[in-house]
Amino acid sequence: MDRLFYPESVAIIGASRSPHKFGHIQVANLLRTGFRGRIYPVNPRAEEILGLRCYPSILDVPGQVDVAVVSIPAPKVPRAVEECVEKGVGFVVVISSGFREAGPEGEKLQEAMLEAIRGTETRIVGPNTTGILNAEAGFTTTFMPVWGPMREGPVSFIVQTGLFAGTLLLHILTAERFGLAKVAGLGNKCDLDETEVMEYLLEDPATEVIAMYMEGVGDGRKFMGIARRLAKEKPVLILKSGRTEAGMRAALSHTGSLAGRDEIFEAACRQCGLIRVRDFEEMLDLVKIFAMQPLPDGPRVGVASYTGAGCVIASDECLLHGLQLAEPNEERLLELGRSLPPWARPGHPIDIEPLHETVGPSGYEVALRILAEDPNVDAIMANVMALPVEIKDAPFYASPEELAGFFVKAIGPEARKPVAVCVGGDKNSVDEAMRELEEAGFPTYPSIRRAMRALAALYKYKCIREKLSRA
Amino acid sequence: MDRLFYPESVAIIGASRSPHKFGHIQVANLLRTGFRGRIYPVNPRAEEILGLRCYPSILDVPGQVDVAVVSIPAPKVPRAVEECVEKGVGFVVVISSGFREAGPEGEKLQEAMLEAIRGTETRIVGPNTTGILNAEAGFTTTFMPVWGPMREGPVSFIVQTGLFAGTLLLHILTAERFGLAKVAGLGNKCDLDETEVMEYLLEDPATEVIAMYMEGVGDGRKFMGIARRLAKEKPVLILKSGRTEAGMRAALSHTGSLAGRDEIFEAACRQCGLIRVRDFEEMLDLVKIFAMQPLPDGPRVGVASYTGAGCVIASDECLLHGLQLAEPNEERLLELGRSLPPWARPGHPIDIEPLHETVGPSGYEVALRILAEDPNVDAIMANVMALPVEIKDAPFYASPEELAGFFVKAIGPEARKPVAVCVGGDKNSVDEAMRELEEAGFPTYPSIRRAMRALAALYKYKCIREKLSRA
Repeated sequence: MDRLFYPESVAIIGASRSPHKFGHIQVANLLRTGFRGRIYPVNPRAEEILGLRCYPSILDVPGQVDVAVVSIPAPKVPRAVEECVEKGVGFVVVISSGFREAGPEGEKLQEAMLEAIRGTETRIVGPNTTGILNAEAGFTTTFMPVWGPMREGPVSFIVQTGLFAGTLLLHILTAERFGLAKVAGLGNKCDLDETEVMEYLLEDPATEVIAMYMEGVGDGRKFMGIARRLAKEKPVLILKSGRTEAGMRAALSHTGSLAGRDEIFEAACRQCGLIRVRDFEEMLDLVKIFAMQPLPDGPRVGVASYTGAGCVIASDECLLHGLQLAEPNEERLLELGRSLPPWARPGHPIDIEPLHETVGPSGYEVALRILAEDPNVDAIMANVMALPVEIKDAPFYASPEELAGFFVKAIGPEARKPVAVCVGGDKNSVDEAMRELEEAGFPTYPSIRRAMRALAALYKYKCIREKLSRA
Repeated sequence: MDRLFYPESVAIIGASRSPHKFGHIQVANLLRTGFRGRIYPVNPRAEEILGLRCYPSILDVPGQVDVAVVSIPAPKVPRAVEECVEKGVGFVVVISSGFREAGPEGEKLQEAMLEAIRGTETRIVGPNTTGILNAEAGFTTTFMPVWGPMREGPVSFIVQTGLFAGTLLLHILTAERFGLAKVAGLGNKCDLDETEVMEYLLEDPATEVIAMYMEGVGDGRKFMGIARRLAKEKPVLILKSGRTEAGMRAALSHTGSLAGRDEIFEAACRQCGLIRVRDFEEMLDLVKIFAMQPLPDGPRVGVASYTGAGCVIASDECLLHGLQLAEPNEERLLELGRSLPPWARPGHPIDIEPLHETVGPSGYEVALRILAEDPNVDAIMANVMALPVEIKDAPFYASPEELAGFFVKAIGPEARKPVAVCVGGDKNSVDEAMRELEEAGFPTYPSIRRAMRALAALYKYKCIREKLSRA
């Protein structure tokens, strides 16, 4: 599988000179992402593409080819796969659609492709996919433009859809601050399936968190076996669609997947220790806290919130998510009381607003430090306000950088407890504060509920891991 | 109550020359928001504030005062209220904290305030609140800076917390495209309570949607009576915190509210036709679709989605939210089929991607028009992709303006069916596309689940209204 994720040579079958064809974007991406292997555009009607020599057929390529990326019309794909086999290509990534998901004609084409690789060492990824990405190697087969080196990080995705490239990957590359390890887009997964990728990611040192989107599972028993081994080592988040009758029908026409009964899948997830998510929003919310924060020792959450309503909502959400509201050390709270104005009483959740009256914006730091140092607190939820820069001279104003600085100073790595931050307020300041906080390693959320849900997932995984280790 | 929301004269008790004091921001806001009434700053140690003559006491103000806004330390508030009574002020909005929510001492101050108004016509709003806002009149008592005229619209809020001003109002003013009618921040609601404001909003022609945040309800029977009357006319969304034991304790120390058992409140909401939401995120998601879109005639949702995975997820979410997947007219779908490339089959949900291959970006328009014109479709969920401007010459690229244009052209007001749009992709393009779509009246969401949840709320309210009308 290293040949697939760290190829030394890649052929783009269907490489194009038209800047907007998939086969052009794929070549252009590899030139921009820092890919250091050899790139062989294949197109019988071109001499050169983006300064690279073009070959009429993959059989004309001089050296070995680890990965061939295929973006040509479906009826021509089986022949191309035969040539790849003849060439000894390791993996053929078939981007094209029009196979099993498109009806009987497509089904035949998919069979023909499989026939071509039968008994050979060549493997097929897809068809009907965006393929592979490895940030570390600067390698991607996606047909969405990528503008530079991709941010490396601990998160790997296994996905069965073009939605990943179409929107989610664009979103991650332009809006998220966690980095990517590997992405495997499996599409119709006529050959390579999720279990093999899971085996690979289990051993992949770059991968610390795994997120999956599936529409159906082929071999349930095999899937559960590897899922359990994987979940014991690394958190696995899974979004499984085709949950309802209407969804199952849609899945059948999308990736030709048989979705199976949802209750059975749900039970399987519980048994294997997979963390099931409802949508991509929840998936990314959890991915980033797993990527950025340690697991908590227990379920006791300390809360510091701007405004009393935030304290009330955070208390509710804490319990509604199965966590406990921490009972911080009384003495330290009384000490906090000495920083408060006379009208305010110390308590937990800590309302930061009164602290602003006495110690200004560093009230955040005071409150956070109390929670960070308290052994009765396993995890921290902070609700902060991002104010418009126009009132930057106000005594309670903290710039996005200062806000992040308070967290860094109050909660060092030695605290070894996870933090989730809800940020609200002025739109531009919220965007900036979220960026600053996440660059400093603190995951941010637009609502208290979502911040608490993220902490709950960390605790859930801690329990999963303990249970799987005992078994 | 018109005196409270449309005051002809406002006194700011505690007006300040320091630009960052609440009593300064309040005066500055009124000068910027287009308020046309008289403004009387009150401060014994100032001659003039922001060019306005300052009065040592409210008793020195020459004319009548409709509203007095009080932002001075709690111990001084009862005396100020006495003077307001003597002056014949209509409403005293007490911003200051340090009353019932702060313990026995504060409780006494709150009692003293109430004693001062007993048997008089003067009413108190608060204490411990951000007070009142009326976009139409350019009137607000908030202590968060507002930079210009507030966007007018159909949405009114009744809230019991400073969080509204602290973050939610800033968020709404800087990030949301629905407009505001009235906001009533009630804080500890020692005198004016939600039921009176609800009575007022029932008759207020500017208010078409009501969103409430409550920590506790005083007179349950009275609340249910007005809630039911209100819900029959206008959708009422309610976020009630203090749901759990920990939340109740926090509510007690925040606004001194007794939250009561959550199951009872839940049952009351169902009986009165209130739509309960889990957090502010859900509240705003629903507020905007109620503000921008009509109610559906039935539960049948037509889906047009970029990518097959979007079709699968939308089908699931449709059923999981209690809606039905529409069965569009077969003939029209076959007609759609003639626009598709040979490998794709027409079906529902409509996958827009294949249409991009044949008719380019206007595939969106083609798909949306089919759903808009079909009598078997009651509501429309669209999942669109916002691409980076760098590939603007690609045949499937649509700019944010073009994207919004496709919706405007395909779904005119004569369609009389609600639309919710999920937008994903490149961050900047997503932000712009959301702005363009919402300026054109189509509410946008970052996930299919949230778009479908919003459509489900419209249908739920349609059913509520029918039920309440029959009763």
